[in-house]
Amino acid sequence: MPLIPKSHPRVKSLLIREKLVNGFDKGLVAKEGLLAQGRGEAFDYLLGEKTNKSASHAIKAAAAQLLVAEMPVISVNGNIAALCPKQIVKLSNQIKANLEVNLFYTNEKRKQAIVKILKKNGANKILGTKSTSSKKLPGIDSARRIVDKDGIFVADVVVVPLEDGDRTMALRKAGKTVITIDLNPLSRTSQTANITIVDNVTRAIDLLINESKKLSKKNQKSLLKIINEFDNKKNLRENVIQIKNNLTRRAKIA
Amino acid sequence: MPLIPKSHPRVKSLLIREKLVNGFDKGLVAKEGLLAQGRGEAFDYLLGEKTNKSASHAIKAAAAQLLVAEMPVISVNGNIAALCPKQIVKLSNQIKANLEVNLFYTNEKRKQAIVKILKKNGANKILGTKSTSSKKLPGIDSARRIVDKDGIFVADVVVVPLEDGDRTMALRKAGKTVITIDLNPLSRTSQTANITIVDNVTRAIDLLINESKKLSKKNQKSLLKIINEFDNKKNLRENVIQIKNNLTRRAKIA
Repeated sequence: MPLIPKSHPRVKSLLIREKLVNGFDKGLVAKEGLLAQGRGEAFDYLLGEKTNKSASHAIKAAAAQLLVAEMPVISVNGNIAALCPKQIVKLSNQIKANLEVNLFYTNEKRKQAIVKILKKNGANKILGTKSTSSKKLPGIDSARRIVDKDGIFVADVVVVPLEDGDRTMALRKAGKTVITIDLNPLSRTSQTANITIVDNVTRAIDLLINESKKLSKKNQKSLLKIINEFDNKKNLRENVIQIKNNLTRRAKIA
Repeated sequence: MPLIPKSHPRVKSLLIREKLVNGFDKGLVAKEGLLAQGRGEAFDYLLGEKTNKSASHAIKAAAAQLLVAEMPVISVNGNIAALCPKQIVKLSNQIKANLEVNLFYTNEKRKQAIVKILKKNGANKILGTKSTSSKKLPGIDSARRIVDKDGIFVADVVVVPLEDGDRTMALRKAGKTVITIDLNPLSRTSQTANITIVDNVTRAIDLLINESKKLSKKNQKSLLKIINEFDNKKNLRENVIQIKNNLTRRAKIA
């Protein structure tokens, strides 16, 4: 790994990047995952590289949704395993959700590497690993529609951080309530999900854990009120406005 | 390589991505190059994935600048070699500029793979390959300041498509006129270069070749007029406005 110069003004972003590159070296991340991270970096840069008010609002709605869920499942891919394995296991314990390894670019070896890192970070049960448990979601190209019959297939609420648009649509069509974490407020995933947290996963998951803890004291009625009052389209528009304001500000400084 | 579903709405972008992933497999592209491509994809998406008027304007100024240059050099990195080796060689022939392989993450094996692909695409002379020709640029962290004494070191105009901000600054400090191709109008490279073409290299280089052909019939005075009338800061601001307008439009459709 080449040395990152400390004098570089984007050293923080370069260090997250290094985490992902290390994840690639360990066989967790696909090549396409490196590209996806790059796209995320660009949007994070435009969002000011911090959790904004709209994201906090979406995180609260997501926490409420997860607390009222009967069978929530968290979908884990290589980038999540490389960037925040500890947090994703912590989130699954906090909200009592199963973890399911679900890859866009299927690869058995990579799947095993992801299972290993999740176990190392405290995960007990991990779905999506046995071919005997495979079930197909309808309405999506063949290779990418496989889910676990005891996981996503029967889940009522699915958390898909960093997901592809086609799969998000397939999940919605299958009747799932979808929560996503996506830095591009205009992506199909963002636009298709029920609740979109427009934030970096390395910041958002910790906040989601905290919010879930806080809201766990509330009753069902209060939680449903939070969910019903949340408007995902409005939230996404606020994020677009945020990017536009940041562009104006940066263009003035430049 | 996994199959790209034809039904995917971003199939064009996925095919460029595939080119870069293939370049990675051939040893041309660094892991960090995959991430950089991802960032570019995001900005290209925001720019509408087409060459806009401001970019055409910058391409014209760049062509004029290259035609009046006494010793122009084109810096080639792994991503350029993977995305458009044929075009970059064609550009170097058109404007009579030397090609110099210059990598952010130095790696001898990768350098040789880049040289090989450039030669395969018709390049005769390639600088930046002999350690005996190395010279150091001042004002930049050690590992990244090495250039060729017969190339960038003595060049008056340097084309650096997809360059890092630190190096662009070092080139400017060394008195070079810098032309860059960068999809982020707010990046340090974009803000530091003399002429910034805010466009995808896979579109811009062909257009730069055509413009150079067209302008080669003009006299020195006309060319200097084009250069003097070009205002890079204004051009970059126009690109930021373009992104903001696209965001407004997309947010309405979404």
